[in-house]
Amino acid sequence: LTRTKKSPEIITRKTLLTSRMFNVETRDVAFSNGNVTNYEVVSPIYNGAVLVVPILDRSSILLIREYGAGVNRYELGFPKGKVDQGEDILEAANRELQEEVGMASSKLRHVKTVTLAPGMFSHESYIIFAEKLTPSRLEGDEPEEIETIKINLTNVVDMQLTEEITEARSLLALYLVRDYLCCG
Amino acid sequence: LTRTKKSPEIITRKTLLTSRMFNVETRDVAFSNGNVTNYEVVSPIYNGAVLVVPILDRSSILLIREYGAGVNRYELGFPKGKVDQGEDILEAANRELQEEVGMASSKLRHVKTVTLAPGMFSHESYIIFAEKLTPSRLEGDEPEEIETIKINLTNVVDMQLTEEITEARSLLALYLVRDYLCCG
Repeated sequence: LTRTKKSPEIITRKTLLTSRMFNVETRDVAFSNGNVTNYEVVSPIYNGAVLVVPILDRSSILLIREYGAGVNRYELGFPKGKVDQGEDILEAANRELQEEVGMASSKLRHVKTVTLAPGMFSHESYIIFAEKLTPSRLEGDEPEEIETIKINLTNVVDMQLTEEITEARSLLALYLVRDYLCCG
Repeated sequence: LTRTKKSPEIITRKTLLTSRMFNVETRDVAFSNGNVTNYEVVSPIYNGAVLVVPILDRSSILLIREYGAGVNRYELGFPKGKVDQGEDILEAANRELQEEVGMASSKLRHVKTVTLAPGMFSHESYIIFAEKLTPSRLEGDEPEEIETIKINLTNVVDMQLTEEITEARSLLALYLVRDYLCCG
């Protein structure tokens, strides 16, 4: 798995849009063979996002059903949210957990940093396992109450076949937690 | 897993940017409890993307190392690309396979449709398994030759710990193909 090529170099960049959430820019990138290609890249304005896996015990976890504005429908998935200024990612995870499912964790662990579509987006998400949960509610900025659903991990494979979980990050996190609880 | 709430309704939408690749808009969404929240949504200009898992045999698959403009580095992952106008998703998968790894497949199967971050993006990706591979090269629009790497699936879990695969879609696809080859 050795790298064989010199890194491409960004030779021009121009901002197309800066909005509340996104920066969109166009870049010309020069490759080591001399080719120059134009790309459009979306970057977040904020410091990355956490995705939190609330682990109840050796066989069960929590999912939430939340409106996804991008797809304009309800989706099952894990609690998630932006890392606020001055927060570290574990603090952000514990805050989101309290806001979205009304639980605090005393055992948080960063498992993996994932990207969404590295060809277009620079977004990074931190997958975090949260164990030793106790009831604790923080007021969030959610527009409505979020439905929480307890899932038995023996049903995980079936869950993926449902239409209600489509998010690659959440599906990956289901596999990661299944491996962790079964073999860790 | 029954739905308990009336679907939110998009009450206003305004385009912030239309570029070659993206449409960015701001939307006000009304929830059934009367709350109205503003969202920014990025949508693709094109018809979704395919992510192709080239399966060589019961124990090995191919990955590629490709420059990701969004993250400005090389990444390991699966061949992927946009679905062209007039193509169905299996045709798009077979074309990308020939362009990026120089193989054609006579057994293609759509396994799962995934989203990337349903709160912000409307993008959909089609994960497709490609079996019965034979050499066949199509000229693509890649700026440089793409490196292909054969991976033994017994190493899959280790691979995820490397820094070189970060994309949630590709990591999920690794799990899906591992499950398929081990148990299918």
